[in-house]
Order: sequence, then C-alpha cells, then structure tokens
Amino acid sequence: MTGQVRIHNFAISLDGFGTGADQSADAPFGHAGASLMQWFFGTRRGAAIHGMEGAARGVDDAFTEAWDAGIGVEIMGRNKFAPSRGPWEDESWRGWWGEQTPFSTPVIVLTHHPRPAFTTGDGVEFRFLDATPTEALAAAREIAGDADVRIGGGVTTVRDFLAADLVDHMHLVEVPIVLGRGERLWDGLEGLQARFDVESVASPSGVVHRTFTRRRR
Amino acid sequence: MTGQVRIHNFAISLDGFGTGADQSADAPFGHAGASLMQWFFGTRRGAAIHGMEGAARGVDDAFTEAWDAGIGVEIMGRNKFAPSRGPWEDESWRGWWGEQTPFSTPVIVLTHHPRPAFTTGDGVEFRFLDATPTEALAAAREIAGDADVRIGGGVTTVRDFLAADLVDHMHLVEVPIVLGRGERLWDGLEGLQARFDVESVASPSGVVHRTFTRRRR
Repeated sequence: MTGQVRIHNFAISLDGFGTGADQSADAPFGHAGASLMQWFFGTRRGAAIHGMEGAARGVDDAFTEAWDAGIGVEIMGRNKFAPSRGPWEDESWRGWWGEQTPFSTPVIVLTHHPRPAFTTGDGVEFRFLDATPTEALAAAREIAGDADVRIGGGVTTVRDFLAADLVDHMHLVEVPIVLGRGERLWDGLEGLQARFDVESVASPSGVVHRTFTRRRR
Repeated sequence: MTGQVRIHNFAISLDGFGTGADQSADAPFGHAGASLMQWFFGTRRGAAIHGMEGAARGVDDAFTEAWDAGIGVEIMGRNKFAPSRGPWEDESWRGWWGEQTPFSTPVIVLTHHPRPAFTTGDGVEFRFLDATPTEALAAAREIAGDADVRIGGGVTTVRDFLAADLVDHMHLVEVPIVLGRGERLWDGLEGLQARFDVESVASPSGVVHRTFTRRRR
C-alpha cells in the first residue's frame, strides 16, 4: 500500500502568509519573527525542539503529536533549509538546526543547485535534488517504502505540491495576525476545497487548526 | 456615550476575498456565487432575508442575531448597493433587495456620484454621500445619535474603515474555500491585530467565526 503525502503544523497568518518578507540567517521567518510559531512553543513537541520543557495540554498538542507518526521521509524546499539563494557559496551550512535536528527520518532538500548528501551528528541524512514535485515524490517513496511522505515546507514547496495534486492530508494552523508581506500560501490554488474535506477547530491558544483530507475518488 | 462602530457577518474565503471577481447584476458576489453566504442561509436570520423558513440552532445563529441589536444606521459602499460603477445611468436601481429591504435603520451609501435620497417601500431611507470614512461616520452619528453604527461592506468599505482605525468590533466569518480572485480584505492592514483582541470559534457548519474587539486604550 502506498503511503500518504502529509503536511503538518504549517502555520499561516490571517492573510495567508506562511513566512514574512526579508528572510535572513538571523530571521528564518523574515519580518514575521516568531509570531507564526508562538503557538508551537507552547506544545510539548515544540518546546522540546527548542530545548525547553513542556507538558502536553490540549488541542495544540493533539495536532502536533501527529507530525512524525508513520513518516518515512521529509521533502523540504531550499528556503526551509537555508537563508541563502542561488549557488552555494560553500557547503558549511548544514541547516538552521545544526547537528541536532528535529528529524527522525532522511530529508530531501529541493534545490536547483544540488550538493553532496551529508549526515548530521544525530544521524539524519540530507540529500539534495533538483526535481519537480512528482519526481521528488518518486525519489521520496524509494526511501520511505510504504511509509508516509511529509512535505515540510516552506510555502513555495507546499503550494507546488498542492498545485500538482499530490497532497493527501494537510494540517494548517491559522494564527490571528495580519502579516501584510511575505510568501502567500493560497496563490494559484483557486477551488482547492473541491478536492478535500475541511475541518476546523479553534484552540484556546488563539489559533485555528484546519485539516484538509483528500476526498475518496 | 458615543455608539460603537460595528461590522457583522462579514464573510471571507480562506485566501481573504470578501467577494469574487466579475460582479454583475446577476452575480452580486461575482464568480464566488453564493459560496460565501451558504452558511448564512442556514441561520434563522439568513433564511428570513431570503424568504425561507429557518429555525435557530447553534453558533452561526448566535452570531447572526447580533447583527441589528443597538444599530442606528448602516454605512455601505457603492458596490454593496449596486453592480454599476461610475455615474448613474439612471436612478431606477434602488438596491439589490428592491423595496423590501433587510434593514431596520437608515442607510448611507458611499459613492463618488451622489444622487437624491429615497425611501423604500418598507420605509428605509437611503442617502448618498461622497465622503471619507471619518466624514461618513460623522454623518452617520448625526442620524444614529448614541446608537451604534454598522459598516455593512463591501470589502473596500470595510478595509477603509479598518485602515482609518474607526472600527470597534468586527465579526468575520471564514468560509473554507479558496476563491483565488476578487477583493481582498487584508491588503494594507499589516499589524491590525495589535489594536484588537481576537477570538475564534469553529462552527459545525464548517465556517470559523472571528471577533475583533478593540483593546481599551
């Protein structure tokens, strides 16, 4: 049985931005700062990733716990891996997280400038691939076998996989802020709801969780 | 005590469009059709406005019932009143609703092309005003006295009043559809959340109700 393609914990603003403008090495989310991720720091998983103690509590935790179960590989875009653009000046950058990653599976990084694979200190293999969503998914299934494939972001990567109709399940988190600038998730996805059943749950933390589950065909 | 400025039942898509593209006399919401208002038809008030029988049920009804209480006047934009643009070809158009309106108070229509006031068959006075939001609000308060002023839409009018920081309370309804085209609510409103306390409630109907309540200064 072929695994599903899943997106989890993907935060957007009320105006649909999944990241702010002006990303840099000091600002992974650009001018959005930590505003899109504050809800996540309050969860057990989010706290652990950022080296804090956390305790499971409510709806935010319930959703975040689904992130890793059954996943065999993550596909991410260049901008989730690095602040730089274009050809690599050198290959010393090994991800925002350094040698201790939040990942428990291999990672495929989509880039027009592939570089050699490497393995982080905690044993996560990063491969670099110049590929369409369909090609990348085929490569991911080689690694994942029957397990699920997670699309890790950023915005462009999520949007491209949605546009190519390759996503089975998406969990969005709407944060009640108006960012005004950045990368919009929804551009080019008119009518997306026709392919999905959508559920919405409001959390006491202020965010709204939405799940998009592919309709059976 | 000065009345509040309130917005109610204002529906937007996931991508922030309050109306679709290509509005016409046959299509008040353009290519969005009735998709932004289906949730409303299921409420007692929405059913009544459209000549159907309805029964109060749950969270959607609770929100819609707040629409008229304490309101002394509505301000609306030209596009909520009419599909035409520019100078009036004639003055036979008296609103999408005809002589039986959903309104129980006078209405101010903002337009760069004022025309004489008239009163509908059910006794609602429509006045036409070429004015900034601040000027229009002053005119509205003359009519409303201490009662509240409702900003009735469309998108541009709501956005202009938010940008001018004249809104005390806003109730949005997020419909889980991706419209792709139309009039965006959020443009130019970066950082809006700093002025409001935001609450979110998911309805079994699939929509999410959000209230923006001005913070006390």
